[in-house]
Amino acid sequence: MRKRSTPKYKLVDHLTTTYEAHVSFHDADPLGIVWHGNYVKFFEKGREAFGRKHGLDYGDIYNNGYSTPVVHLECDYKVSLRYGDVYRVVTSMVLAAGAKIILVYQIFNESDILVCEGTTTQVFVNLDGELALYSPDFYEIWKKKVNFN
Amino acid sequence: MRKRSTPKYKLVDHLTTTYEAHVSFHDADPLGIVWHGNYVKFFEKGREAFGRKHGLDYGDIYNNGYSTPVVHLECDYKVSLRYGDVYRVVTSMVLAAGAKIILVYQIFNESDILVCEGTTTQVFVNLDGELALYSPDFYEIWKKKVNFN
Amino acid sequence: MRKRSTPKYKLVDHLTTTYEAHVSFHDADPLGIVWHGNYVKFFEKGREAFGRKHGLDYGDIYNNGYSTPVVHLECDYKVSLRYGDVYRVVTSMVLAAGAKIILVYQIFNESDILVCEGTTTQVFVNLDGELALYSPDFYEIWKKKVNFN
Amino acid sequence: MRKRSTPKYKLVDHLTTTYEAHVSFHDADPLGIVWHGNYVKFFEKGREAFGRKHGLDYGDIYNNGYSTPVVHLECDYKVSLRYGDVYRVVTSMVLAAGAKIILVYQIFNESDILVCEGTTTQVFVNLDGELALYSPDFYEIWKKKVNFN
Repeated sequence: MRKRSTPKYKLVDHLTTTYEAHVSFHDADPLGIVWHGNYVKFFEKGREAFGRKHGLDYGDIYNNGYSTPVVHLECDYKVSLRYGDVYRVVTSMVLAAGAKIILVYQIFNESDILVCEGTTTQVFVNLDGELALYSPDFYEIWKKKVNFN
Repeated sequence: MRKRSTPKYKLVDHLTTTYEAHVSFHDADPLGIVWHGNYVKFFEKGREAFGRKHGLDYGDIYNNGYSTPVVHLECDYKVSLRYGDVYRVVTSMVLAAGAKIILVYQIFNESDILVCEGTTTQVFVNLDGELALYSPDFYEIWKKKVNFN
Repeated sequence: MRKRSTPKYKLVDHLTTTYEAHVSFHDADPLGIVWHGNYVKFFEKGREAFGRKHGLDYGDIYNNGYSTPVVHLECDYKVSLRYGDVYRVVTSMVLAAGAKIILVYQIFNESDILVCEGTTTQVFVNLDGELALYSPDFYEIWKKKVNFN
Repeated sequence: MRKRSTPKYKLVDHLTTTYEAHVSFHDADPLGIVWHGNYVKFFEKGREAFGRKHGLDYGDIYNNGYSTPVVHLECDYKVSLRYGDVYRVVTSMVLAAGAKIILVYQIFNESDILVCEGTTTQVFVNLDGELALYSPDFYEIWKKKVNFN
């Protein structure tokens, strides 16, 4: 339906994780394709796999005294995924100024066509609910450890 | 597709609440009908409307020191609801022995046909996570107040 | 947690619809607030109310030989909605060049604080799955009828 | 919170499939545990894995001229699954008289504790929407092939 498209973001190769799954019946809408809002769940599956692999999941963050609510979400839909398809979510990071985490998600179908690309921006909020104006120490240490800068 | 069916449960008339809404695109599956698992959300919409009307919502229960996890769910599907349909959830209570809440849900379409009927069974768990063996005082008081016994 | 924010988009006053509902238990996440992906469902609730009010729902579009897949989604989260809160989705249109529909959604809490703002961009695809390069006649007629131009 | 419970159903050993996944943030509710309605999605993940393994997925059934709507759902909740937990869905079949498919799902946590058990009952509906009164030939052939009788 649309021409093959090139990704908008360049991924950081050594900070990349792949999550793979089948499209379920409950993911698909009356057109037989994944309902556009369900890609946000696929992004979260990718983000969680990223966190588990690189030591930055909700638990790690919470144990350091923060939660990281999503303040911005963006998604470009390029090709449809149908019920039963296998898809891969490739998750990586984008270098961001200031106290935030920007993750980029690229979802591919079995023919390696980019079907959907998006980002989430998360900020750091301490356990009193206050927005962190500076990047927390634990996150700076993590970035050094994974050689992300 | 199936003959008109009669409800399995007799509702308690004075303890009944009606919640009405449209079937959304994201509620429907590739067959164009509500995905069977989404009726559990419709039941919860009904349960929440019931709680708000009769003074027994999660907040009321929590303020009395309990949560009420669902331990049993049952659902009979009779007729399909399609994307765009208006449906009504009629929620009521079933008299239950012991320390539990049994709610019954009957969902009707615009032609007053019963499309789905189900129940949830909830138990009382105190804030230490312990199952209540006896019906909590606040619930007994509530039952008297609403004349349910 | 964050200062009161002003909307990014100016709504078209005469093409606006309001949808109101309660946040359900199943909308909320382990932090007790609406999970960020569920706002996409709230947007769809708003879009569907808009379509019903202004004569541009999925059925109207389909009967004219088109579907309108979402190709871009964007969402800014400003304030949290909690379980039990009442929210309003105010949906309107943004003037867009070319063959597409851009809807803007502003979600407010009971104190009239903007909690979330987003847009969806939809294109026209005919029933053979081909992208419309020009705005379909029926849509141009609709725009004149509702005085949107 | 509750004592370790024994399964209600005896599984057919050679007709069993296991699906394993992590509990996602969007699966969990304000109590930090999987929202009870989301187990229906886990059941479907199990059912789809069963269908792929044993040659009885939606596509196989559809190609034989049928769909198999769920007409009854039942679920017993025993122990909570928390965000981040790994769970296994073990899916099998129950011998059923007449033209229907009964699947049983047992969900276990990482300690091999049964957390949830349920069944779905599906009937056969042909492409004209008529309920099959007799088990379709293709299904009888399938049952022989997999030695289920």
